[in-house]
Amino acid sequence: MTDKPRDYCGIFGIQNHPDAALLTYYGLHSLQHRGQESAGITTSYFDEEEERWIMPTHRDFGLVLNVFDDQNIFKEELKGRAAIGHNRYSTSGASKNPANIQPFRVHYRKGNIAIGHNGNLANAKQLRDRFREEGVLFQSTSDTELILHLISHSQKDTQLEQVLEALEQVEGAYSLVMLTDDKLIAVRDPNGFRPLALGKVDGSYCVASETCAFDIIDAEYIRDVEPGEVLVMDQESDADSEPESYFLEPEHGTDTSQCIFEYVYFSRPDSKIFGENVDKVRRNLGKYLAKEHPIDEMLTKETKHKPIVISVPDSSNTAALGYVHENQKLGRECKFEIGLIRNHYVGRTFISPGQKQREQKVRTKFNTVQGVIEGRSVIIVDDSIVRGTTSRYLVDMIRKSNPAEVHFLVSSPPIISPCYYGMDFPTPEELMANRYDRNIDDMAEEIGVDSLCYLSPDGLVNAVKEANVSPKGYCTACFTEDYPVPVNFGVEKEANEII
Amino acid sequence: MTDKPRDYCGIFGIQNHPDAALLTYYGLHSLQHRGQESAGITTSYFDEEEERWIMPTHRDFGLVLNVFDDQNIFKEELKGRAAIGHNRYSTSGASKNPANIQPFRVHYRKGNIAIGHNGNLANAKQLRDRFREEGVLFQSTSDTELILHLISHSQKDTQLEQVLEALEQVEGAYSLVMLTDDKLIAVRDPNGFRPLALGKVDGSYCVASETCAFDIIDAEYIRDVEPGEVLVMDQESDADSEPESYFLEPEHGTDTSQCIFEYVYFSRPDSKIFGENVDKVRRNLGKYLAKEHPIDEMLTKETKHKPIVISVPDSSNTAALGYVHENQKLGRECKFEIGLIRNHYVGRTFISPGQKQREQKVRTKFNTVQGVIEGRSVIIVDDSIVRGTTSRYLVDMIRKSNPAEVHFLVSSPPIISPCYYGMDFPTPEELMANRYDRNIDDMAEEIGVDSLCYLSPDGLVNAVKEANVSPKGYCTACFTEDYPVPVNFGVEKEANEII
Amino acid sequence: MTDKPRDYCGIFGIQNHPDAALLTYYGLHSLQHRGQESAGITTSYFDEEEERWIMPTHRDFGLVLNVFDDQNIFKEELKGRAAIGHNRYSTSGASKNPANIQPFRVHYRKGNIAIGHNGNLANAKQLRDRFREEGVLFQSTSDTELILHLISHSQKDTQLEQVLEALEQVEGAYSLVMLTDDKLIAVRDPNGFRPLALGKVDGSYCVASETCAFDIIDAEYIRDVEPGEVLVMDQESDADSEPESYFLEPEHGTDTSQCIFEYVYFSRPDSKIFGENVDKVRRNLGKYLAKEHPIDEMLTKETKHKPIVISVPDSSNTAALGYVHENQKLGRECKFEIGLIRNHYVGRTFISPGQKQREQKVRTKFNTVQGVIEGRSVIIVDDSIVRGTTSRYLVDMIRKSNPAEVHFLVSSPPIISPCYYGMDFPTPEELMANRYDRNIDDMAEEIGVDSLCYLSPDGLVNAVKEANVSPKGYCTACFTEDYPVPVNFGVEKEANEII
Amino acid sequence: MTDKPRDYCGIFGIQNHPDAALLTYYGLHSLQHRGQESAGITTSYFDEEEERWIMPTHRDFGLVLNVFDDQNIFKEELKGRAAIGHNRYSTSGASKNPANIQPFRVHYRKGNIAIGHNGNLANAKQLRDRFREEGVLFQSTSDTELILHLISHSQKDTQLEQVLEALEQVEGAYSLVMLTDDKLIAVRDPNGFRPLALGKVDGSYCVASETCAFDIIDAEYIRDVEPGEVLVMDQESDADSEPESYFLEPEHGTDTSQCIFEYVYFSRPDSKIFGENVDKVRRNLGKYLAKEHPIDEMLTKETKHKPIVISVPDSSNTAALGYVHENQKLGRECKFEIGLIRNHYVGRTFISPGQKQREQKVRTKFNTVQGVIEGRSVIIVDDSIVRGTTSRYLVDMIRKSNPAEVHFLVSSPPIISPCYYGMDFPTPEELMANRYDRNIDDMAEEIGVDSLCYLSPDGLVNAVKEANVSPKGYCTACFTEDYPVPVNFGVEKEANEII
Repeated sequence: MTDKPRDYCGIFGIQNHPDAALLTYYGLHSLQHRGQESAGITTSYFDEEEERWIMPTHRDFGLVLNVFDDQNIFKEELKGRAAIGHNRYSTSGASKNPANIQPFRVHYRKGNIAIGHNGNLANAKQLRDRFREEGVLFQSTSDTELILHLISHSQKDTQLEQVLEALEQVEGAYSLVMLTDDKLIAVRDPNGFRPLALGKVDGSYCVASETCAFDIIDAEYIRDVEPGEVLVMDQESDADSEPESYFLEPEHGTDTSQCIFEYVYFSRPDSKIFGENVDKVRRNLGKYLAKEHPIDEMLTKETKHKPIVISVPDSSNTAALGYVHENQKLGRECKFEIGLIRNHYVGRTFISPGQKQREQKVRTKFNTVQGVIEGRSVIIVDDSIVRGTTSRYLVDMIRKSNPAEVHFLVSSPPIISPCYYGMDFPTPEELMANRYDRNIDDMAEEIGVDSLCYLSPDGLVNAVKEANVSPKGYCTACFTEDYPVPVNFGVEKEANEII
Repeated sequence: MTDKPRDYCGIFGIQNHPDAALLTYYGLHSLQHRGQESAGITTSYFDEEEERWIMPTHRDFGLVLNVFDDQNIFKEELKGRAAIGHNRYSTSGASKNPANIQPFRVHYRKGNIAIGHNGNLANAKQLRDRFREEGVLFQSTSDTELILHLISHSQKDTQLEQVLEALEQVEGAYSLVMLTDDKLIAVRDPNGFRPLALGKVDGSYCVASETCAFDIIDAEYIRDVEPGEVLVMDQESDADSEPESYFLEPEHGTDTSQCIFEYVYFSRPDSKIFGENVDKVRRNLGKYLAKEHPIDEMLTKETKHKPIVISVPDSSNTAALGYVHENQKLGRECKFEIGLIRNHYVGRTFISPGQKQREQKVRTKFNTVQGVIEGRSVIIVDDSIVRGTTSRYLVDMIRKSNPAEVHFLVSSPPIISPCYYGMDFPTPEELMANRYDRNIDDMAEEIGVDSLCYLSPDGLVNAVKEANVSPKGYCTACFTEDYPVPVNFGVEKEANEII
Repeated sequence: MTDKPRDYCGIFGIQNHPDAALLTYYGLHSLQHRGQESAGITTSYFDEEEERWIMPTHRDFGLVLNVFDDQNIFKEELKGRAAIGHNRYSTSGASKNPANIQPFRVHYRKGNIAIGHNGNLANAKQLRDRFREEGVLFQSTSDTELILHLISHSQKDTQLEQVLEALEQVEGAYSLVMLTDDKLIAVRDPNGFRPLALGKVDGSYCVASETCAFDIIDAEYIRDVEPGEVLVMDQESDADSEPESYFLEPEHGTDTSQCIFEYVYFSRPDSKIFGENVDKVRRNLGKYLAKEHPIDEMLTKETKHKPIVISVPDSSNTAALGYVHENQKLGRECKFEIGLIRNHYVGRTFISPGQKQREQKVRTKFNTVQGVIEGRSVIIVDDSIVRGTTSRYLVDMIRKSNPAEVHFLVSSPPIISPCYYGMDFPTPEELMANRYDRNIDDMAEEIGVDSLCYLSPDGLVNAVKEANVSPKGYCTACFTEDYPVPVNFGVEKEANEII
Repeated sequence: MTDKPRDYCGIFGIQNHPDAALLTYYGLHSLQHRGQESAGITTSYFDEEEERWIMPTHRDFGLVLNVFDDQNIFKEELKGRAAIGHNRYSTSGASKNPANIQPFRVHYRKGNIAIGHNGNLANAKQLRDRFREEGVLFQSTSDTELILHLISHSQKDTQLEQVLEALEQVEGAYSLVMLTDDKLIAVRDPNGFRPLALGKVDGSYCVASETCAFDIIDAEYIRDVEPGEVLVMDQESDADSEPESYFLEPEHGTDTSQCIFEYVYFSRPDSKIFGENVDKVRRNLGKYLAKEHPIDEMLTKETKHKPIVISVPDSSNTAALGYVHENQKLGRECKFEIGLIRNHYVGRTFISPGQKQREQKVRTKFNTVQGVIEGRSVIIVDDSIVRGTTSRYLVDMIRKSNPAEVHFLVSSPPIISPCYYGMDFPTPEELMANRYDRNIDDMAEEIGVDSLCYLSPDGLVNAVKEANVSPKGYCTACFTEDYPVPVNFGVEKEANEII
């Protein structure tokens, strides 16, 4: 797996609103789970005195709350009726370079352009190599900067034509928000890997990675930006100015392939993505889990202990409830309990000699409720297992409260392969499923449970499609190794960077 | 109500352990919910070269994670086999004075002494007046500093005797951890207002406000420090050195009066305090709520909608579950659902003109899960209502998801009076129950619900006593105005401070 | 020598002026040479709403320019028509304690009091011991805090009486500026060790360590505060309110003993102190140096090289000019030249292995002008030699520019003994004069010059008295070991500190 | 005048030395007067493990002392045997962009390259326009970045050939230090506008803007880098590896035109630049001033007061001494005195309503020595007058000390025109000489002196040439409007910047 930055990100954009920057702030805040490393907002306004467009930008490392810690930023600095914003989480060393914090903004011969990007380009290496040969210098290792160079090098007449020409050349996963001198542009790649929704507030259009960003500003959800759609809105509109749509041709003739992992883990349960409530889909995962692994079958025959179902909070709560309710519906004895308490103040973990870093990390993040667990048959529901080490320590911790049995249910299939479309997993060798040759019994032993069950790949897809009123194709590559768009590797560590 | 600082606090202490500071760090981290404003640790060791005891102290504003952000603090700075730590939250302006960050440490003619305090002295004004007349100068407005001056002015021979003489002079609520030159001392006031538990890890004794601090360091809970007990432990013990106990006489012949609000809201559900698991007690509050307000009676007669019970996460989760399970047990249709999502990234809220600060704050902190709420009869369970404004906006938000009905259940009685023993409430005039003359119907209208029900004061006490295997007396002053220890008011804003 | 802090300091005070804080800022800025470690200003105003006096204080480590880096500090924070300010330099570890930054401010039963102090108390140990026995707690190791405790413990009726009672109990060197609730008080100890001048600007009185602080605010010099004088001014005066004077009795019947080293090195040449211009006195030191060591006698007989006189900039410039002009007046060939350039950007010095810290420090601070020095007989004039190591490296550096000869003239006698009255010198063993048993030839060899000459103690005193229109007694203890006030040593490292 | 950044700068480079970064630090420190806004160092080493060259860079806003405040920077971060460094002062808003802090470093297809630049390109606009048309994006508004793009776009085979091809395309003023993967390259433009000297220390070559940077590291001055010379040195040399020289063709057939203002004001007096000691040249300016304006002619006839000559410290000290010594040599009565004291702690100036910013700034920076000035005929020597406002307030201040007469001598001609080669002056309209139509009497009246005299342009050039053992051509454009290289204006504020 290449070590270039592969970002989780949240993006937001809004046009034609007097509080554009402030609403973007709240949008980013509600998307904080998609990236806690850095945040930024760019606005746009026409300066009457200087007779030109200005795009003020405020960006920094840190949570949205810390990057924008002064009301004056919105009032005095980030002026304008259009804004875009970006949250980012990166796992590579490149994350330390402030030049990698988005939105990126550029002033070139056609005017200003700003961009925020969620996803990963599949042909970044080829594009970068081409520019390198010409002698073009970069200031970051980010895929996103490539899009700006493509736009700037385009010899088309208008900014919009340049953007379209640039997008024809990139492949892979990208949801984008852009500001040109007078437009707000929202883009979703032809496969529709990453989500992007369209909303409306006070008569102004807004776009966001998830609809929870609409709720916080009291905006109404309209529809998703379509896979391959380039949605163009005026920054400052007259009454009836409507967005215009352009469509990108899929490079590889592929179908829609929306990231199914957004439903499994990544998105917030109160969001609607890919056209459906995450809560509803995730609840259905629990239901399918109950079908594939009824609670009675989980328990060892001899047990007389009443089973309880607990979730690993907070991401697995809904799937666990779905599991419980389905079992109850089918007449099986099954009770939802809160057996794990999560400490939401999380930071660096210090260890003393002989201690294990990851063990202490688990203990710092979770604690058990002894009275709930003691003497019971405990069914833990979690959304996924990556390395397995955390699960192991979690089980160890639960065992200390003396349960009768411990079973582990996962509301998705084993993760066996990396994601090249914007989600970050460790190397294949580090994945638990690979370390134990996908042998479930060995994996159960590794994490120390009486039994371990996964939702099947078919179960996953069916559960998602059943819950979704308008299902499309999904990317399940991390569970199936079935990659919808080919990827190029081997990008060098340092590109043509000025630093 | 006087505006002097009244602190929520968490305290921790440990003796005779090679990782004393590190374990104190984890203890404080797990007590973070008791005070997010500042944190500090003091350790103690005998410097062979200087031939005297040294008490290194590291304190600052901020979360435990930020105050101690470098492993070297524990290794190189905070040396010693004994340590005490303190988390603090203060609501007064005095909070900005770094001199108010605990532990306080003093070097005086008998040696070093350090102290961390949870609670509020009831006779602080008299003590302060006495010192002021003498011309003694203070460096903070904290009650805690008074205890140090009492110790330092004592003409007794030993530090322990001085501590005991000082404690005989103070009244009110105080749980204390102290380090003298060779002892760790843990104290609980004769009324036992605030919790303090004794634990053991690797053969070393430790004390903490709540037992969740023991779990994180894998310590075993031994027993509570008794009301009025002064527990004295050697900093560095030989094998069989056991703690010695001294007992303070209650000033006013009062009985034990442990803060019942710790069970209602303040303590973590995974902690054991006052000898019982908070989860168990809180679940019993839900059970009593079900007895006093069965779900059937809540609903309007004509409704055909299936009722769901949702909690205001995370503090009301357990009471809500208790309510659901009791109703189910009694054969009533009742379902626990997750209808509110809490965003744990919380900080400053910015508003645009015309917006309401508190409304935006609620929207920043919570979001509804529309699919869960729409068309249902929703029973919200919350642990308490203070001003009522937050509840109102929360209900507004829920109403936007189109429930059929909205009912509000509170797992404690109406708050009608301030706490003078270490818990912070707004002025009596700001409390919702007082603003509406304790008229429940008016209060229901104010927060916009179809019905509002509180647990009765008797229900509260009975629920707590039933759940607790060894119940003692409780202070319920904030619900009943029945104050176990008289309080003196009118302390001036600025004492004899050197600043 | 005890290692308790012994401070260089600059103090300033002003009453009845609308820009009290801003003028104090400029006063402190011009006194920056007296203390670069920390700075602070306290003002005083009557808050009509709160019906009490408030004394806002702004203090921090750093230069005056950095501590007060925002105009708003003067406008919004430091309100009031009276202000005092303090610059400080301390050599002890205690310097790291922010509690040691002055002015100190206290609120006690009689009101507010603030104090800024230049000097060192001779009986600090006795006073501290007395308080320690009582159990009084300190927050700093500073002598100055003792004065506040003495005032606060006084049972007199008025603040002024309390101040006078407190001052009767302290001995040693102290120039003070104080604010009580409605007075500005300026004090000079009975010996008059440290300077303090009275000025007037826009009808308001001001006091300052040196008159350069008057020039920067366009104030007029009136007279010195007299030794033993307690000058009391209203904070907000009516038209004709004049200062009142009280006088302290000298403890030991001693005469005036003003610090002669202020003239030699410490004060700015453009200041008037002890009633006379420093430039004039320092020029006279050069003249007496010319009398005791005429330039002809300095040079070796065989030399044919034209002699040049260079100073170690900037503190020795005036004495060097005085030396040159007197020699010229007496018909001796003598030329003033600039042979050393000083780099005023000075900070930490880094060294590579094998390098000498102090050597690099000299090279970082000074450079020679080769064209001036090459082939000439160079007479270096410096104001004093302390350890001698710096002089040695300076001479080494000059030698690299190939002078014919190098002679070293010092415009004061050898330093042989510590100062206990507010000036900081290294331990007696480190002083060059002591290391070489006061043997001038050995000292010349040590610093590598062809000859070394000092001004005699008598020459020093006569030069000062001749230049001064109203000469008084001077303290020459560092040159003569003749201490006018006895000093007590042995204060412990840590007093009764709350920290 | 265009408002693009026009930098004062100091540059330094060294090859083949174990303490390359540390020596560069000291070099930059001694060049601090050439730029106080930001500082940076880049080193270069071959990483055996990664098998590639690494160029660590440490840069920030602030003084050299603050940017490099930790010894570890030199030991652990800035590894390598070759280093370049850069100090910068910029007057434009662009100064706030951290991307403008040099050295710039780039990694491109041929390897690493780093660059530090003193000067201004005359054809920056054309170069930038050409790149803009292609769509190349910039990250700064700096001329220096253009050079990097030229190198990166060159299709030559080696880094050295690319550098040479790039330099053939730039015009104007540039002294450069560069690191390629294995070379240290020092360049001076064909006109030789800005200085650059070659030195040697411990067998290693070093280059610096002024030789004071050699003195501080005990390096020996070898010779100047020649106008048009590209001096190439191995980063890590074998014993006898000598620098190789390449020469650039002058674009416009112009002759050498070294900046004469470096001698007048900018360089340090202890430096050798353009082959001669600044002190010697500056002293000759004083001598020519005495020839053109003998002291007798300055004084009004009726005066009986003894004249004194004072300088505006520190930059005019040497010229003032030269003036005095020449007058004395010619038998005229003339005495050098120190009449102005400069406060070297300078920062922001705060004003109260009604005060003049610049007046307070002068008073904050200078004070008079009253005893020196009172009753005397005072001749002030200053190196130059720009706006004249500072001079006016200085004269006002001197007048307050009651001199008999005040005359003003300037050791250079009136400044009448901007510099486009790296020196910063205000707009032509702001220059005093232009505001008064170059009428000397009006200018004298403006600054409030009895007479005002300038050195003539011929006097300036003759004085410089007489003092210089190997004189070359000089640029005197700011005094004469005679520009040796044509300049293109009109660069837009914002180039193709990614920010």
